[in-house]
Amino acid sequence: MNTFGKKFCLTTFGESHGKALGCIVDGVPAGLKIDEAFIQSELDRRKPGKSKLETARKEDDKVEILSGTFEGFSTGTPIMMVIFNGNQKSRDYDNVKELFRPGHADFTYFHKYGIRDYRGGGRSSARETAARVAGGAIAKLMLKTLDIEIVSGLCEVDGIKAKDYDFEYAKSSLLYALDREVASQQEEAIISAKKKHDSVGGVVLTIAKGVPIGLGEPLYYKLDAILAEAMMGINACKGVEIGDGISSASLKGSQNNDAITPKGFRTNHSGGILGGISNGDDIVVKSHFKPTPSIFQEQDTVNTSNEAMKFELKGRHDPCVAIRGSVVCEAMMALVLADMTLLNMGKKMEHLEKIYQS
Amino acid sequence: MNTFGKKFCLTTFGESHGKALGCIVDGVPAGLKIDEAFIQSELDRRKPGKSKLETARKEDDKVEILSGTFEGFSTGTPIMMVIFNGNQKSRDYDNVKELFRPGHADFTYFHKYGIRDYRGGGRSSARETAARVAGGAIAKLMLKTLDIEIVSGLCEVDGIKAKDYDFEYAKSSLLYALDREVASQQEEAIISAKKKHDSVGGVVLTIAKGVPIGLGEPLYYKLDAILAEAMMGINACKGVEIGDGISSASLKGSQNNDAITPKGFRTNHSGGILGGISNGDDIVVKSHFKPTPSIFQEQDTVNTSNEAMKFELKGRHDPCVAIRGSVVCEAMMALVLADMTLLNMGKKMEHLEKIYQS
Amino acid sequence: MNTFGKKFCLTTFGESHGKALGCIVDGVPAGLKIDEAFIQSELDRRKPGKSKLETARKEDDKVEILSGTFEGFSTGTPIMMVIFNGNQKSRDYDNVKELFRPGHADFTYFHKYGIRDYRGGGRSSARETAARVAGGAIAKLMLKTLDIEIVSGLCEVDGIKAKDYDFEYAKSSLLYALDREVASQQEEAIISAKKKHDSVGGVVLTIAKGVPIGLGEPLYYKLDAILAEAMMGINACKGVEIGDGISSASLKGSQNNDAITPKGFRTNHSGGILGGISNGDDIVVKSHFKPTPSIFQEQDTVNTSNEAMKFELKGRHDPCVAIRGSVVCEAMMALVLADMTLLNMGKKMEHLEKIYQS
Amino acid sequence: MNTFGKKFCLTTFGESHGKALGCIVDGVPAGLKIDEAFIQSELDRRKPGKSKLETARKEDDKVEILSGTFEGFSTGTPIMMVIFNGNQKSRDYDNVKELFRPGHADFTYFHKYGIRDYRGGGRSSARETAARVAGGAIAKLMLKTLDIEIVSGLCEVDGIKAKDYDFEYAKSSLLYALDREVASQQEEAIISAKKKHDSVGGVVLTIAKGVPIGLGEPLYYKLDAILAEAMMGINACKGVEIGDGISSASLKGSQNNDAITPKGFRTNHSGGILGGISNGDDIVVKSHFKPTPSIFQEQDTVNTSNEAMKFELKGRHDPCVAIRGSVVCEAMMALVLADMTLLNMGKKMEHLEKIYQS
Repeated sequence: MNTFGKKFCLTTFGESHGKALGCIVDGVPAGLKIDEAFIQSELDRRKPGKSKLETARKEDDKVEILSGTFEGFSTGTPIMMVIFNGNQKSRDYDNVKELFRPGHADFTYFHKYGIRDYRGGGRSSARETAARVAGGAIAKLMLKTLDIEIVSGLCEVDGIKAKDYDFEYAKSSLLYALDREVASQQEEAIISAKKKHDSVGGVVLTIAKGVPIGLGEPLYYKLDAILAEAMMGINACKGVEIGDGISSASLKGSQNNDAITPKGFRTNHSGGILGGISNGDDIVVKSHFKPTPSIFQEQDTVNTSNEAMKFELKGRHDPCVAIRGSVVCEAMMALVLADMTLLNMGKKMEHLEKIYQS
Repeated sequence: MNTFGKKFCLTTFGESHGKALGCIVDGVPAGLKIDEAFIQSELDRRKPGKSKLETARKEDDKVEILSGTFEGFSTGTPIMMVIFNGNQKSRDYDNVKELFRPGHADFTYFHKYGIRDYRGGGRSSARETAARVAGGAIAKLMLKTLDIEIVSGLCEVDGIKAKDYDFEYAKSSLLYALDREVASQQEEAIISAKKKHDSVGGVVLTIAKGVPIGLGEPLYYKLDAILAEAMMGINACKGVEIGDGISSASLKGSQNNDAITPKGFRTNHSGGILGGISNGDDIVVKSHFKPTPSIFQEQDTVNTSNEAMKFELKGRHDPCVAIRGSVVCEAMMALVLADMTLLNMGKKMEHLEKIYQS
Repeated sequence: MNTFGKKFCLTTFGESHGKALGCIVDGVPAGLKIDEAFIQSELDRRKPGKSKLETARKEDDKVEILSGTFEGFSTGTPIMMVIFNGNQKSRDYDNVKELFRPGHADFTYFHKYGIRDYRGGGRSSARETAARVAGGAIAKLMLKTLDIEIVSGLCEVDGIKAKDYDFEYAKSSLLYALDREVASQQEEAIISAKKKHDSVGGVVLTIAKGVPIGLGEPLYYKLDAILAEAMMGINACKGVEIGDGISSASLKGSQNNDAITPKGFRTNHSGGILGGISNGDDIVVKSHFKPTPSIFQEQDTVNTSNEAMKFELKGRHDPCVAIRGSVVCEAMMALVLADMTLLNMGKKMEHLEKIYQS
Repeated sequence: MNTFGKKFCLTTFGESHGKALGCIVDGVPAGLKIDEAFIQSELDRRKPGKSKLETARKEDDKVEILSGTFEGFSTGTPIMMVIFNGNQKSRDYDNVKELFRPGHADFTYFHKYGIRDYRGGGRSSARETAARVAGGAIAKLMLKTLDIEIVSGLCEVDGIKAKDYDFEYAKSSLLYALDREVASQQEEAIISAKKKHDSVGGVVLTIAKGVPIGLGEPLYYKLDAILAEAMMGINACKGVEIGDGISSASLKGSQNNDAITPKGFRTNHSGGILGGISNGDDIVVKSHFKPTPSIFQEQDTVNTSNEAMKFELKGRHDPCVAIRGSVVCEAMMALVLADMTLLNMGKKMEHLEKIYQS
C-alpha cells in the first residue's frame, strides 16, 4: 500500500519529521547509467524555499543511493535512496498535537489508525513527494534512453489561466508558469493571498512526448486510468483530465473525434490515449490542485476529544502547493510510463521471439 | 491486467461478439446473502434499448452464477458470473475489418497486439461494462449490510447542467437525469444530435452515503486515487473530480477548507476524503464522458496498410454513452468501497484482537 | 487468492459439484496459435476413470473456450475456459454433510468460512486441478514455441522407487510410471491397497528441458521458491525437492557443487537453478504426495457440533492421487515457466532497445 | 520482486558489500509496541562469528529504525530498518571478478542481468537474510500479542539426525541443535569438514504453536504452499516438507490420516495444515539446506569469456549454512503467519460486522 507500479515499482517510507525518508525503486532494468547529479537536480527543483512564492522552510533534500548500483550502472537489484531529515522544528507542531487541522489528513489518520505522528503531518506531509521525485528521476533516465521526454508547468493559478503554453519558459519561471504573459499576474495572486494569510489553488499541465504506440494495459491498468490514479494521489490534487478532458463532455462526437491520416492523428483531443492505450501522440494530463489547506487564519475545528476549538497555524507553509506540484506530476507520469513500458514487453509473441530466439 | 481490486477483486473476460462475457468476483466474505434478482436488476438498468435515447441494439444480458455460492449464500470461494452473447450481427462490422474507427481503440489494439477482434470493438467494447455491473452488484450487496448506499445520475448533458440534484427522480428518468427542470432539454439535445448523426457528452455524479471514517490506504492506494482510476477506466471517461474538484483550484484556502465541528464537517468541499482516507462525509465523484465516438457521419481514417480512407459507420450506437455510464459509475464505486472496506481490516491491532481473541 | 502468477496469470473458479468449473488465463501474448485439440488432450490425460488404478468416477471434462481467441490465435485478452459439470451424484455426500472427513479440508473450510459446500469437497476438491491443466496447456503452447518442453512421471509409489527414468515409457504407462521394471510392482501395491479399502502415496518427478539461462526473479520470486509454492499447492502434496533436494543435505560441498566447464555444468545436483535463477540445465523437481485421504475404512471424526462420530466413506475415489498428480505437476511447472519467461523481459536495458528501438 | 507478502509485506534492499542493506515492513497494524531490543536480539542470533562453527567474519548488524514508529508504537506507516555495512574486505573478491564460483549465483546473475556486483555475491549473498530477520522480528512481535510462538532448531547435520527435539536446548546450543545427545557429534562433523576445507548440509525444523484455525488462503495462497515458497527461497534451501512430508508418501491412507476427536486431532501427520488452511495444531516445516558452496578446495569453473579456469576461494565462510538458517526459517515463518493473519480478516461477513458495526 506504499508501493506504486507493477513492474517498475516505487516503495516509499518516511515521515516529515522522522529521521529520514526515501524510497526503493525496484524493477529497473540492469545496465542503465544512473546519473546521480540528475537525480539531485530533480530534487532541487522540488525543494522548498527557492523563492518568496514558496514556504521559507529550508530542506536540503540531499539524496544518497545505498544499493542497487555498481560502478555507475543499475544492476537489476533494488535501488534504495534516502534523504535524511535535518533539524525540523517539531515544536512548531506542539499546538496541533490534540487538534485536527481543517483540510488536512490529521482527522482521518487519527481515526483510521488510532495513533498519528502529528509533527508536520507525519506520513501525510507533502514532504513525502521528495521520494516520488527521486524515483521519478530514475524513471526519467530510463525513458530518456527511449527518447521519451516529460515536461510540465502551471497553466492556471488562482483562476488565472495561461493562454499559451511555453514549456521552455516554465523551466526558468519561479512558479513554473507556462505563459509569460500572465505569469506576473499569477505571481501577484499568490503574494496577495499570502499577505492575507490565505492560499490559492492551481493547475499543472504535464505532457509526455515520444511515447510509442501501445503503452497501457486493458482493461484494468489502462494508461489513462493509472495516470488519473497517479495524479489524484498527489497531495491536494482534486481533479484530473486526459486530453480535452472535461471540455470534451460538452462537445459533439463530430468535433471531438480525432481524424486519422497516413501521417498520424489530425488533432489530439484524446490526449494521446485511445481505449487506455497510447496512440503515439503526446500524452496530455491536467492536474487540479486545491489551495494549500495550511492557512494562517483562525479556523474552527475539534480536538481529539471532539470538543470545539479554534485553530491557528504556526510554522511555514507554501501559499500555493501547485507550484512544487509541477515537478511531482512529472515524476508520477515518468513512473507510470516506465511501468507501462516494461509491462508492454511480451504482449506479442514476436517480442518473445526477439528476446529468446536470438 | 484484467483484474480490479486487491482484496475484493473483479476479473472480467469476454468480447462483444464472442461467445460470452462475464467475471469472477474473488474475495467476497463468506455468509453474504446473494440476491440474484438484485444482480439481474442492476444489469437491466445498464442494458441498452430501453428508450429512444439509447442504441436500438437489444442485449438480454441474462446473468448466471456458475460458482461460489451454496444455498443462496457466498462461501468465500470465487463467484463466477457469465452472460452469453445472443446473436450479434457480426456482419455489421465487415466494413471496419481493415479500417480504424476514429475515436476508438481499434488503432491502439491493433498496434499493441498485432491482431484484433474487430467485431464491435471486441474486448474494448463498452459491452464489457456489463461484467463490471455484475461485480458491482455483489459489492453493493456487501456494502448494504454495512449501511453504505451508492446513488448516481447525470448532472450535465451536452453542456446543459443540472442546477439541483434529485437522486430519486434520476431513478425514474430515462436518462438518469438529476434535475427534472432541465431533463427534457437534455433529452432534446440527445435526440437532436442523433438526428444529425452526431453524439453528445455528459457528466455523471456518483455519491456514496454512510461510508465510515477510515477507508483508503495511504499512500499509494488512496481512496481518491483509486476512485479516479476506477472512473477514468470506464470507456469514454476523460475527466474525474473529487468533491469540488476542478472548481476548488480557483478557490482560496479559507473558502475551500471544511471547518470541523463536534457534529462533523460544516461543509463538504473535500468530497468526503482527506489525505486519501474517507472522513465520514458523503463521497462525491464526478465523471466526465466524451461524446460517443460512433457517429454516422463520414470521417477520415486509414486502413491497416496506413492508406487514407473514408469511414462511414453502420450498426446501432448510443448517442450519449454517459446515460448508461451512470450505472457503471455506481458499480465501480461499489467495487472500490468494498475493496477498501476489506483492506481496512487489520489496520489497528485492536481489529486483530476483536477477531482473534474472542 | 484464486490467481496464480504475476504476468501469465491463471484464475480458477468452480466447485466439484457446482454447475461448472474453469479458469481465466490472462497475460497470454497475442499471436499464439491456440491448439484446442491439444488442450483437450491434456485434460484427457488428467481425467479419472481411465483404468482400474483410478477412481471409477466418470468425468467428461470437455473444455470450451469462451473468450480471448480470434480465428485460432490469442488476441492478448483474457482466455476463458469452462468445463460444465455433468450429473454428479451429490447424494453420495449426504452422509458427510455434518461430518468432517479425516485428512480433508472440510474441517478447515468450515471453520474459516463458517459455511462450506460439502458436496465432494466443493472448492477444495482435486477436481479443480482440471482448471490448472487447462491453463497449463496454454502455457505449454507458449513454451513450445520457445523450445521448452516439460515431462513427468512417477518415480515412487507406496515406497517402491524407480531406479531408472524413462519419460517415453511413462507416457504409455497406466500410472505414468518412470521405470518399467518396477511399474507392475507399483501397480500391484495400488490394487492391493484398494482391495484393503486403503490408499497409497507416491512421488512425481517433473523436468523442464530447454529452459534458457535467466528465468527467476530474485529475491522473492525465485524460480525454485515459486516451483515449491506451485507444487506444494497441489492437493495432497506434502514435500518438494529441487535437484538433489533432500539428499544434498547429507552431502559435502565438494560433492554437491556442480563444476562449470566451457560446455556447461559437469553435473546437475542443483536441479538447474542457482540463486533462484535458471542456469540453462534441466529444471528438476520432485513432488511428494500423501496417500489419498479418502479411504473406505471406518475412521474417528467429529460432526459440526464437535461430537465424536464414526465416519465411513461412500462414493468413488482414487487409491493413489499421485498418478493423476503427474499431469497436474506438469501444468504447474508450465505456468511457472511461462510467467517467469514474461517477467524476465525487460531485465536488461538491451531488451528494451530490442523491442522499442527497432 | 523484492517484496514478500501481500498485506504484511517485507521489501528488502542491499548488497553484501554495498553501503547498507535493510528493509521496509509495510502493513504492520497501528498500535503495536515496537521492541527495538528484541529486534536487535534476533539479529544477534543470526549474525556470524559467534563460534568456531561459523565464519570468522565479523558483522555488527546494528539495526536502526528510520520510519514508521512514533513514541515506541507502530503508526500503520511503513517501518524502514537499515543496517549499515562496516568495512567489508572487498579485495577478497578481486580474484572472483572474472570467475563464476561453482554452486553460487554468480553465473546466473551475470547472464540474467549482463552485469553483477561480484563482491561477496552482491545481492545474492546470504547477508541479505539479515533484512529478513529484522522483518521477521516485527512479525513475531505482532504474533506474540496473539499468543503465537515460533521455535526452531537443527534436526540433522551432515546426515546425523536428531532423535529427540528439545527446542529449549536448541536456544543455548552453538549450532541450534535440537538433540543434545547428537549435538557434539554434529559439531565434530562440521569441524572435521572445515579442516578438510569442505562444508556440510543440514536440516532445520521450524514449528509454530498457538496458530488459530483458518489461516491460509485457498487456492493459490495456501499456507503450506507459501511456507514452501518462503523456505525454498532462503539461500541454499533445496527441499521443504510439511508435517510428515516425504515420509507420508510411503504411508497408507489409514496410517497417514489424522483422526479427529472432540479434543482435537489425535495425531499431527499433516503438520497442522489441511487444504492449505491451518487446523489449529502445530505448524511443522522442515527445510533442507545444501552444504555451503563456498569451500576452500580447488574447483573447475569458467570465466566470463567461458574459458576453463581453476577457482580457489579466499575469504571467510560458514562451513554449515544451516546453522544460521535456523533463525532465518523462523523469520520467514513469522512473516508468512503475520501475512495470513491479516489476510484472513474479512473472510466472514461476521468479521465485518464486528469491526464496522460496533
